[in-house]
Amino acid sequence: MKFRVLKKSKKSKARLGIIKTKNGVLHTPAFFPVATQGAVKTLDSQDIRKIGFEAVLCNTYHLMLRPGSKLIQQTGGLHKFMGFQGVIATDSGGFQVFSLGKGLEQGIGKIAKIFPGQKKKKQAKQIKPSLVKIREEGVWFRSHLDGKEFFLSPEKSIQIQQEMAADIIFSFDECTSPLDGLAYTKKAMERTHRWAERCLKAKSKTSQGLFGIVQGGEYKGLRQKSAKFIGSLGFSGFGIGGSLGKTKQRIFQVLDWTIPLLPENKPRHLLGIGYLEDMEKAIKKGIDLFDCVYPTRLARHGAAIVSQNKIINLNRPGFLKDKEPINSACSCPACQGYSISYLSHLLRAGETTAMRLVTLHNLYFFRAFMDNMRERIKNNEL
Amino acid sequence: MKFRVLKKSKKSKARLGIIKTKNGVLHTPAFFPVATQGAVKTLDSQDIRKIGFEAVLCNTYHLMLRPGSKLIQQTGGLHKFMGFQGVIATDSGGFQVFSLGKGLEQGIGKIAKIFPGQKKKKQAKQIKPSLVKIREEGVWFRSHLDGKEFFLSPEKSIQIQQEMAADIIFSFDECTSPLDGLAYTKKAMERTHRWAERCLKAKSKTSQGLFGIVQGGEYKGLRQKSAKFIGSLGFSGFGIGGSLGKTKQRIFQVLDWTIPLLPENKPRHLLGIGYLEDMEKAIKKGIDLFDCVYPTRLARHGAAIVSQNKIINLNRPGFLKDKEPINSACSCPACQGYSISYLSHLLRAGETTAMRLVTLHNLYFFRAFMDNMRERIKNNEL
Repeated sequence: MKFRVLKKSKKSKARLGIIKTKNGVLHTPAFFPVATQGAVKTLDSQDIRKIGFEAVLCNTYHLMLRPGSKLIQQTGGLHKFMGFQGVIATDSGGFQVFSLGKGLEQGIGKIAKIFPGQKKKKQAKQIKPSLVKIREEGVWFRSHLDGKEFFLSPEKSIQIQQEMAADIIFSFDECTSPLDGLAYTKKAMERTHRWAERCLKAKSKTSQGLFGIVQGGEYKGLRQKSAKFIGSLGFSGFGIGGSLGKTKQRIFQVLDWTIPLLPENKPRHLLGIGYLEDMEKAIKKGIDLFDCVYPTRLARHGAAIVSQNKIINLNRPGFLKDKEPINSACSCPACQGYSISYLSHLLRAGETTAMRLVTLHNLYFFRAFMDNMRERIKNNEL
Repeated sequence: MKFRVLKKSKKSKARLGIIKTKNGVLHTPAFFPVATQGAVKTLDSQDIRKIGFEAVLCNTYHLMLRPGSKLIQQTGGLHKFMGFQGVIATDSGGFQVFSLGKGLEQGIGKIAKIFPGQKKKKQAKQIKPSLVKIREEGVWFRSHLDGKEFFLSPEKSIQIQQEMAADIIFSFDECTSPLDGLAYTKKAMERTHRWAERCLKAKSKTSQGLFGIVQGGEYKGLRQKSAKFIGSLGFSGFGIGGSLGKTKQRIFQVLDWTIPLLPENKPRHLLGIGYLEDMEKAIKKGIDLFDCVYPTRLARHGAAIVSQNKIINLNRPGFLKDKEPINSACSCPACQGYSISYLSHLLRAGETTAMRLVTLHNLYFFRAFMDNMRERIKNNEL
């Protein structure tokens, strides 16, 4: 994997770049749609290319449990398995392990998805003692699918990610929560640093780019220390992960502390962030890459992005009579073919066709949004 | 709506024809994918055209309950509502009313779908007294969605179908069950005949083609009587409906009794039949049109049609390792892009992407099957 900065904006720290891999190129700033289990929910790999995306991100945790990395390797790796011609990234599994453990105990994060239909507090009670044991060696956890015990460590995560053969892979880290104090956040960060070195050591000489992850919670000192340390190792790029604080402003402070300490010539990925206004601000601070389930999850709940500041809930009864498309200026397959009225009807009727069409729309919006970001950087307007 | 027989086979009673409507043409013999609630499940209207279908069939019963025919009329009719450029047919609602009433009481038909997850006998007990009251004037029934009472009659069904503005609409009939005896089947047939006359009278001078429905169960005398009577009225085409007997052979006997008594120059639709071998036999006896949820329902359960005699269940564990497409000779979007292994994984993982891809494949197979039928008629090979 190779990265080159093509241009820097004269107005901010935003930059245009290009990632080249043996499976395709990725123009940055870019957004990765999330293909958790090897498919962006409701879509197939051809759809992703058709609406203009050059890359997707898959979740190591989900794929290691099912179908397993060995099976993906036997079928020729993730690109062949998914039929995706383009750049694929896999995360390290660290965030999902956090969700199963501390996230679930503290009622934070994406756990509602893991035990759907249960109240968060009830979930937390049910699963104590924790599904997760974190040790220096690695993490033992129980699958959310069948309770079977699994082990992930820096070496194991790299091995699995090499078997799946994505173009961009991530270092195995320990995420902390906004509820963790300084002491625990520091301990976890130091462990993440030791794990980062073990990941680099474990990696074979493949063409995959390995990204290190900066941790340190919402603490300036820790974030700076982590950025310096992780930035000094031989990674191909960097993720900024873990807790970004309890408020929105804190996210951008974290970026201000972190980014200046990372090497200029390597891509920076702000993990799991996907609100449009946040991405714009983060790009201005020098972020190149994003991934988030936000646009696709919104869509499956019937929420369509009309503009940067307007989202409509198609389940609302008034929309049944609306003959217009979601956005008459949009060229996505949903807006080109169907009215709000029809989408609203299909959602009420439980037809997955609607979830798919709104997913196509929301992702198309995200793709166009990123095109616009790049255009504005090119013209020194951002 | 206009129909013309283009050619008759020299080997059987099979024939090539063309239906012309203001929204498009339909080459017969043809299969209608079923868009129950205004979408073929998991697909959108563009998909249907892309895999080569000229027509779909929607269910009046489902659409009258949700979103209602008035709403469809206000948004410009079914073609505009669904964004479908092609021929649309709507059934009369008679079959679904049968499913809710006698079908549910006797544990026959498509009721498992209406109360999913319940055993048929338990369903039958729960809903006595019946959800349906059949009278000369029409039928009162309660919605499977919310128990609200609705009324359908010949006049009402035609009104609703005119509001939705499909190209082909059907006469309101009373379906009988294979468990009904001669006496009840006769009574229902005679009522269907009176309703047929009321439907013709109720129809405005639209360009819609109205099809009459031949009933009479598995009784030769009744079927002949019904074919003669319905065939003598001014319908644009004919459906052969209701119970086709307890055995497969009986279906074809019913066709032998019925078809010779129907006008040569009008299309004949064998309602709800969709097994490949049955369609081939029915075409040889002079049937022009079919509709069935079979290929799409199969797909959603993970069953893919490999050839006319081979269906594979992608949920079987062995398929996880199969790197081949469902059929390497197939040009459908699923076979062109994805392996059995991937589809099998996505099915296990509960990803609707898999149901969609297998639906595309199974329908593509049906479309190619019908192309082949027409080619063989053209060459006097069928």
